[in-house]
Amino acid sequence: MNYNAPLREMCFVLHELFDVTAHCDRLGNELDRETIDGILEQGARFAGQVVAPLNRQGDEQGCRLEKGSVRTPDGFRQAYQQYVENGWAAMTGPLEYGGQGLPQMVAACFHEMLMGASLSFRIYSGLTEGAVLALYRHGSAALKRDYLGKLVSGQWAGTMCLTEPQAGTDLALLRTRAEPQGDGSYLISGSKIFISGGEQDLTENIVHLVLARLPDAPTGVRGISLFLVPKFICTAEGEPGLRNAVTCGALEHKMGIKGAATCVMNFDAAQGWLVGEANQGLACMFTMMNDARFQVGLQGLGIAEAAFQGGLAYARERLQSRSLAGPVAPERSADPIICHPDVRRMLLTQKTLTEGCRMLAALTAQALDLEHGAALPEERLAAGRRAALLIPIVKALLTDVGQEVASLGVQLYGGHGYIREWGMEQLMRDSRITQLYEGTNGIQALDLIRRKVLGDGGEQLHLLIEQLLAQVGECRSEPLTGMAKAVSQRLLEWRNLSAEVLDACRCDPQEIGAVSVDFLAYSGYVLLAALWLRAAERACAALAAGSPDCAFYQAKVQAATFYWRRILPRANAHCEALRGGAQCLMSLDEAHFAF
Amino acid sequence: MNYNAPLREMCFVLHELFDVTAHCDRLGNELDRETIDGILEQGARFAGQVVAPLNRQGDEQGCRLEKGSVRTPDGFRQAYQQYVENGWAAMTGPLEYGGQGLPQMVAACFHEMLMGASLSFRIYSGLTEGAVLALYRHGSAALKRDYLGKLVSGQWAGTMCLTEPQAGTDLALLRTRAEPQGDGSYLISGSKIFISGGEQDLTENIVHLVLARLPDAPTGVRGISLFLVPKFICTAEGEPGLRNAVTCGALEHKMGIKGAATCVMNFDAAQGWLVGEANQGLACMFTMMNDARFQVGLQGLGIAEAAFQGGLAYARERLQSRSLAGPVAPERSADPIICHPDVRRMLLTQKTLTEGCRMLAALTAQALDLEHGAALPEERLAAGRRAALLIPIVKALLTDVGQEVASLGVQLYGGHGYIREWGMEQLMRDSRITQLYEGTNGIQALDLIRRKVLGDGGEQLHLLIEQLLAQVGECRSEPLTGMAKAVSQRLLEWRNLSAEVLDACRCDPQEIGAVSVDFLAYSGYVLLAALWLRAAERACAALAAGSPDCAFYQAKVQAATFYWRRILPRANAHCEALRGGAQCLMSLDEAHFAF
Repeated sequence: MNYNAPLREMCFVLHELFDVTAHCDRLGNELDRETIDGILEQGARFAGQVVAPLNRQGDEQGCRLEKGSVRTPDGFRQAYQQYVENGWAAMTGPLEYGGQGLPQMVAACFHEMLMGASLSFRIYSGLTEGAVLALYRHGSAALKRDYLGKLVSGQWAGTMCLTEPQAGTDLALLRTRAEPQGDGSYLISGSKIFISGGEQDLTENIVHLVLARLPDAPTGVRGISLFLVPKFICTAEGEPGLRNAVTCGALEHKMGIKGAATCVMNFDAAQGWLVGEANQGLACMFTMMNDARFQVGLQGLGIAEAAFQGGLAYARERLQSRSLAGPVAPERSADPIICHPDVRRMLLTQKTLTEGCRMLAALTAQALDLEHGAALPEERLAAGRRAALLIPIVKALLTDVGQEVASLGVQLYGGHGYIREWGMEQLMRDSRITQLYEGTNGIQALDLIRRKVLGDGGEQLHLLIEQLLAQVGECRSEPLTGMAKAVSQRLLEWRNLSAEVLDACRCDPQEIGAVSVDFLAYSGYVLLAALWLRAAERACAALAAGSPDCAFYQAKVQAATFYWRRILPRANAHCEALRGGAQCLMSLDEAHFAF
Repeated sequence: MNYNAPLREMCFVLHELFDVTAHCDRLGNELDRETIDGILEQGARFAGQVVAPLNRQGDEQGCRLEKGSVRTPDGFRQAYQQYVENGWAAMTGPLEYGGQGLPQMVAACFHEMLMGASLSFRIYSGLTEGAVLALYRHGSAALKRDYLGKLVSGQWAGTMCLTEPQAGTDLALLRTRAEPQGDGSYLISGSKIFISGGEQDLTENIVHLVLARLPDAPTGVRGISLFLVPKFICTAEGEPGLRNAVTCGALEHKMGIKGAATCVMNFDAAQGWLVGEANQGLACMFTMMNDARFQVGLQGLGIAEAAFQGGLAYARERLQSRSLAGPVAPERSADPIICHPDVRRMLLTQKTLTEGCRMLAALTAQALDLEHGAALPEERLAAGRRAALLIPIVKALLTDVGQEVASLGVQLYGGHGYIREWGMEQLMRDSRITQLYEGTNGIQALDLIRRKVLGDGGEQLHLLIEQLLAQVGECRSEPLTGMAKAVSQRLLEWRNLSAEVLDACRCDPQEIGAVSVDFLAYSGYVLLAALWLRAAERACAALAAGSPDCAFYQAKVQAATFYWRRILPRANAHCEALRGGAQCLMSLDEAHFAF
């Protein structure tokens, strides 16, 4: 499958909606438009020409475990080398360790491209970025000196070792042990599952970040510490030295992302070093959770874009049946299926969900950047709260959208969508993992309600809604009057609904889990509506100013209208469902679900 | 994965909701309850013990094409032999050709079991039943004499050869040619794709039903004829004789149903015989379309049941986190996840969609049986119209539900859902085909609106709604007052909505395709609500009568309540979306979907 990065769309979001150069200014980063566009153009070439061609073959070949070593699919090694040599790995890394310190708002566009081109390929490097973040923020000077530079450059890779067979969502149950050695190091013993890139042949060293318990640790999540456990222990010269006692026991057989090695990792008294404070492992993980979940959201977005491109190309080519309003291509044997309203419904659903999610990703990237890079502490605090609120929505909504849009891709191809050669079914299989890992989407919804809404009595959410309402109020373009009214009604409904939900959850804790998924979905669709209105308003302004690019801007208004008329109504279903209450979920006895 | 046929549920639907023995009486079939239950119990054993164990291995092994022969996965051959020897193949076949002539309402339960146990295995026999139907209704006496008996018994298998690379939904485009030979036979030449069981090693002969064009045929669908093309031409003794020039050119590589051979079939002047009249091939196919689409609906239902069983078993065993209302299993390391409201939401969604769809399948089977077996011609006509209206809903809704419920199965397992060994992801991959074949679900929705609603000015739909309203009016059980009111409002809304839709479609043909998918989904959810109310009413009556089985009946009322409060709200989204009109779909220029 071809992948063409949606550069025009990305530029619209970055420059016209979010004024990314002004954003860079606020971060003290002097990127100009030309540089940003240049990075994205080169990124598009790398994603489209180097990565995308590996994707199908990676799925067919998968990874192989041979005598403890993992072979990644043909071509991954060469592409990864190019990725490192061209500096793509270091894009977001800290400047003092050789990184380029680019803002998330720009990096997210490149990462979306990588994910759209090949999720499996992207997984190897994505986790390294998480490891860099954890180590940079919590690691000792010695660990940083030894490991950080090569992780930033991508010469070495990082992993996250959290899950154990009995401990997934519930990390309180984890059993991996860490014995202090008296020399500042620890011996780590235990087994971890679902470790992406736990073993691979792309890098000369792999640095595992492992959650484990110290001997005297309290039970539960307050007794978890974070350790750095390298595959090869770094020598004084900064090179891979002694082989550590960490091995890949097996590869998982999965539905998709077959090019990504998902490993069972065994730690047999492997040497490791504490990252951050003892028993503060979960807190250390939490500081990078926002970034990790944001990245998974981007995976959904990347796949959605790829599926939309695939669906659109096919719909314009495939000839089947005549238009309901009479032939549109009488000279051909049948009309291109893009003439059929239901095909257009599928394409526009793909398009407006994907583009809407891209705007939401940019809004979130803005907050993530300001959380770490704004000049004033109060700005950083406010941005951090905004990011915390948006992250669970981004993770769950964008990955649900990824799966829906990929499934629409399959549907658009008819029977051919089910055939591997056409690529659509792979997108569906690959994207399905994104709804599960880094906290299932159900867990995201609980996080939203419990920690992000109940946690501050709805303050942050209220603030967001007020800001969105104010923006709607500024919408002056005549063609958008109807939509603006609808969006503003929805925002008010959202405000009321969240007040209702807060009350209900305070009275009955079961309501938290009863409303969570529907509340997140509701919030997501209304957020996208507000963003689509903003996009349409910008487009109307450009048209009014006589932009020569009028087809692009007209399409934006038309797409916004579609979103309003045909997608936003989903909020109705979620609103009524969550008002259905916990009682109808909790009353059925566990033994009576089936007879 | 285990599969346990839901016998108690099936008995509830057959005996308590639809009084199947009285139904058999109307058909002149003297089946008593004991016999029916005996058949289902034996069927459950066959599905659970013989078929289900083949399913995972069938997925892993797939089919192989070796020198033109297809090898099905290990064990399929033996299980198929047992299927034939035990008489399961002949269940619905006509009595005069050795069939048992069982009504669909009973057979559908067994077929659902087979599909839940292994969709791939079921596909081989399912198409034979379609071929029997076509041949029985349209074949010449000679063809019936030669081929029908062994197709009914399952010794020989049938296929349907419709699709060509350029002709899927649009059969007008098909190119396969038939040259008359002067001896009553024809030479068939062309290539067909997506032929399930086109070649296999389960039966000694394969009888292809092939759509092709005669030399003088008009263009389009009015120039298509149906031909019987056997792999081995039947000898005077009724045995497989000369090998015909029909070969399997390739096997498709698919997302799922890997145990089912999906073949490219090449006809190189293969000898065939006309079935039905020349140029009436499509009409012949249409007579069995209802049955074929009903069967595909059952596939969705069968997979939904399997996924619900898998999800429920895991949710009762898996320990993770504590209940939001305090520990429910303090003696264990964590609580079983079935205590969490969001897990219950997923399970109850699985349960109520699956059971609701089973009721809808029974309602439809009733109509299909009466269409062919009722005593009076006017009864047959009325039932035929009812079946025609329900079939597109059954096909699309049940297969959409199959996919959704399978995906919920994956989600319930968390990361394990993505791992092949657990079986959930296979259900998702297998079920995805059901939304595509036998007419994509988009095509079902067009069929519903165009032929079944617009076709008679909404008369049949109106009649159905009136009958459902009357049933709601008879609902007297006090605990159901709220639900009955809600269902009756929905039925009135459905009536209004269909009048609106009729008007809109008459004014603008594009509205047909613009409203179709949402209208079908809306209709489906409201239909299920009416059926759930009926089930709850029956359950209340049983409770009032002091039934000892009160846990079962209470669970029915609770499940109905969940459906009403948490699933029926989806109708809101579809209702508002379809009112969004065609304009927002059609205005965007084909060239402006992407830039």
